[in-house]
Amino acid sequence: MSLRSSFARLLRKQAGSTLQLQKPAHSVALIGAPFSRGQKRRGVDHGPAAIRNAGLTERLSGLGCRVYDFGDLSFTQVPNDELYNNLVKYPRSVGLASQVLADAVSGAVAAGHSCVTMGGDHSLALGSISGHTRQCPHLCVIWVDAHADINTPLTTQSGNLHGQPVSFLLRELQDKMPLLPGFSWLKPCLSTSDIVYIGLRDVDPAEHYILKNYDIQYYSMRDIDRLGIQKVMERTFEQLMSRRQRPIHLSFDIDAFDPSLAPATGTPVLGGLTYREGMYITEEIHNTGLLSAVDLVEVNPLLGASQEEVNATASLAVDVLATCFGHTREGAHTVFDELPTPNSPDESDSEEQVRI
Amino acid sequence: MSLRSSFARLLRKQAGSTLQLQKPAHSVALIGAPFSRGQKRRGVDHGPAAIRNAGLTERLSGLGCRVYDFGDLSFTQVPNDELYNNLVKYPRSVGLASQVLADAVSGAVAAGHSCVTMGGDHSLALGSISGHTRQCPHLCVIWVDAHADINTPLTTQSGNLHGQPVSFLLRELQDKMPLLPGFSWLKPCLSTSDIVYIGLRDVDPAEHYILKNYDIQYYSMRDIDRLGIQKVMERTFEQLMSRRQRPIHLSFDIDAFDPSLAPATGTPVLGGLTYREGMYITEEIHNTGLLSAVDLVEVNPLLGASQEEVNATASLAVDVLATCFGHTREGAHTVFDELPTPNSPDESDSEEQVRI
Amino acid sequence: MSLRSSFARLLRKQAGSTLQLQKPAHSVALIGAPFSRGQKRRGVDHGPAAIRNAGLTERLSGLGCRVYDFGDLSFTQVPNDELYNNLVKYPRSVGLASQVLADAVSGAVAAGHSCVTMGGDHSLALGSISGHTRQCPHLCVIWVDAHADINTPLTTQSGNLHGQPVSFLLRELQDKMPLLPGFSWLKPCLSTSDIVYIGLRDVDPAEHYILKNYDIQYYSMRDIDRLGIQKVMERTFEQLMSRRQRPIHLSFDIDAFDPSLAPATGTPVLGGLTYREGMYITEEIHNTGLLSAVDLVEVNPLLGASQEEVNATASLAVDVLATCFGHTREGAHTVFDELPTPNSPDESDSEEQVRI
Repeated sequence: MSLRSSFARLLRKQAGSTLQLQKPAHSVALIGAPFSRGQKRRGVDHGPAAIRNAGLTERLSGLGCRVYDFGDLSFTQVPNDELYNNLVKYPRSVGLASQVLADAVSGAVAAGHSCVTMGGDHSLALGSISGHTRQCPHLCVIWVDAHADINTPLTTQSGNLHGQPVSFLLRELQDKMPLLPGFSWLKPCLSTSDIVYIGLRDVDPAEHYILKNYDIQYYSMRDIDRLGIQKVMERTFEQLMSRRQRPIHLSFDIDAFDPSLAPATGTPVLGGLTYREGMYITEEIHNTGLLSAVDLVEVNPLLGASQEEVNATASLAVDVLATCFGHTREGAHTVFDELPTPNSPDESDSEEQVRI
Repeated sequence: MSLRSSFARLLRKQAGSTLQLQKPAHSVALIGAPFSRGQKRRGVDHGPAAIRNAGLTERLSGLGCRVYDFGDLSFTQVPNDELYNNLVKYPRSVGLASQVLADAVSGAVAAGHSCVTMGGDHSLALGSISGHTRQCPHLCVIWVDAHADINTPLTTQSGNLHGQPVSFLLRELQDKMPLLPGFSWLKPCLSTSDIVYIGLRDVDPAEHYILKNYDIQYYSMRDIDRLGIQKVMERTFEQLMSRRQRPIHLSFDIDAFDPSLAPATGTPVLGGLTYREGMYITEEIHNTGLLSAVDLVEVNPLLGASQEEVNATASLAVDVLATCFGHTREGAHTVFDELPTPNSPDESDSEEQVRI
Repeated sequence: MSLRSSFARLLRKQAGSTLQLQKPAHSVALIGAPFSRGQKRRGVDHGPAAIRNAGLTERLSGLGCRVYDFGDLSFTQVPNDELYNNLVKYPRSVGLASQVLADAVSGAVAAGHSCVTMGGDHSLALGSISGHTRQCPHLCVIWVDAHADINTPLTTQSGNLHGQPVSFLLRELQDKMPLLPGFSWLKPCLSTSDIVYIGLRDVDPAEHYILKNYDIQYYSMRDIDRLGIQKVMERTFEQLMSRRQRPIHLSFDIDAFDPSLAPATGTPVLGGLTYREGMYITEEIHNTGLLSAVDLVEVNPLLGASQEEVNATASLAVDVLATCFGHTREGAHTVFDELPTPNSPDESDSEEQVRI
């Protein structure tokens, strides 16, 4: 091999290292939250493993992130965790798991990480958002989901707490909220103007009442059809950032996507986000530079009709997270100092040397 | 169980009943029209059964509609129903079936129902629109379809009458129309300005000539790509309603949807409506408050490659009809008087009572 | 059969022939380029056969094109075709194949044909564009692809030449280009302002650097999400045609489509063009009247998971090409002199004659 070709490769390497050095390096904490008591279908506690197996750490590292995987939290199953009000299921277990997660997220953000919580079911957002607000009291929330998850324990029809977390977090709703066993640690930490929903398409009448009467901003699939995803994101940021820039908590339920893309989930609803709309949302959030924590929830590997469906769902979760941390469809926004140049007007000489 | 928790459930129940009472209750007549002689593929006569089995009545009832299922019409097969002009198939059978359906639709509308005709092939629109105009002479038609179905018996290449119904209905085309055996009862009842097409993507040259020369408004898939579905619906209503509000007859061929969504149909064409576009169309039509009758045609359960495909197609038909009658992606537009409120500042007390 | 019904059929026939006569008849040359050395996966050399078997000639003939199929080029495998720079694969084979193709395309265009090159891998665009520019030095290029294919031999990570053809063609990049063995015949023939990309979503950092620093216009999937395909095409033509009308070379990689539509290809990337966007692009290009040559590359029949996937991919390629040459979703833009008219007020008479 000629000296010249080594030099060319060296240039390539330099270009590669330039790439990594000039990128603002995210420090990302991964927290697995294998919790499933907020809903009734088995398997969503295997979500963190499925997302890890789909290559999350490698993808984030490849983007220049420093990744710290804190492993899975272990959640104690509370004995005798009976129904609240003869309806609401596992209140003590959900309350305790969320408390454990809140501590973990608070600690990770305090340590300077962007924090990724891998669910588990969406009741966990009680914990991740509570923990996050301890460090960032002025954060805002973008909730991407087919469902509004804003029933109260008194309006829920199913009794599943993964359909209720938002109601516990909103200050304005507190006079409608009973105190559930296991929830005494929880303090409402958001105002209704701090949250925007994207992707709604299966909203209960009581939830619709709350969204409308408490003036909560949401973009249903109908709104996305009407406005286009570009305008939806523009208005989302206007709503949340008009007075000041502030940290973003993204709470992303994989069921926001169309079931053809994310079949392995517990409550799929037809007519969801396309792959491209999902990536557009997270690209835009990344571009703000304000993303501080993400929940990626409701991947349930037991619910795919085939291994292929499970893999597709888990890979989609990884794509969402990679885009949150800088993956772009246009190529990395890095600065090359210069393109490598052939060393002589007739590089084929050097090639002749290679050939022999 | 404590008194308090019963009270909470009572509140939930009241909220539920409020929901039903405050909704304007549609009275919907279902008419099955298991007719297949307008085209050549076996099975489309099983369409009404497939749509019923997919839960149509339950869905409509759940929306607060009063549903009257009039069962299936029975159609006489006309003996010796030979080709017209050596080409056009089953003219007497199509003519007679449409006449029977026209009477049924006219009767249902006269009785105050919104009328749903479940096909069967699209030649049936001859009957449903004729019958509907007897009661509502000033109605307009929104025809959602991959095909224009506007060949005349003298331009058709296939000879199938499901590709020709519109030409029989339009006054302006009558000098181009021969009198088919079985059609003497039929009077043209629409003007070219009374109809708008949505979803066209497989149009014969003669059909294109008619659309252009008779100045018929249509939005092909290309137009939807160009304008977006929001503008298409806006313009559709401008065109049809600019001078006055009037009853809408929606004639919806399931093949308007992309074949990936509606595979179990006779003449699928790639590049069709997305699920979301289909729902947007019917949401908008519902929102006018003017929908008076709907045809849902060309579901053919024998043509799915699997039971799953058949079920998906029939469910899609039910989603279209449910959205026509008030299903929304944002949650029901009902008015709760108020949200249920916990009875004491510390509802966990009541919960303790439940637990014991 | 009555005289009248023969007359009616005669009218139909005349209408049919009118259709063919009044259409500007494209003369289309088909060139098969079964070449696969620009990348590493077996099978893309079967692309031309797959596209032919999917009925290309019949489709184009049905549109009124005169089709001349020149068969497959035969490419010599260059012996001892060792790596350039220890990395770049098969430079002499790619160089020679492209030279052969350049002659063929140049000849076809000189003979007055619109020229369709069926790949084979995308390294062939070296040849087709070079050959095309010999006859049309002022042409412009619309490159529809998931990838930018603009690495230089000094920035490529994979060493595959199908990821590099554009860099060889652009004058502005020549000081960054080594002379590869087998490439001495090739002269850069495009300026950076002569090309527009559509569909990018997997761009290497060095490619992104080139696109940005050399001010090359591209519309990534993100841009399509943001602007919509209608605006993207509008801007594409503004960019390329603002100063003058000029011939278009369309270089269409089937992997521009979403993998759900075009699975049988070597480097699929999620989040691609919809069927409708692909058709919109080619409809718009056809409508300019300026399309002069097309590459349709990277259909690889060995990579489908099933025969169905292979057929879908090949049919999609045919749909792209048919739309390039006049297929429309609205029906043919032909002029009927008049619609056939029934011969008597009571055509059913004539029908009676038919029946007997």
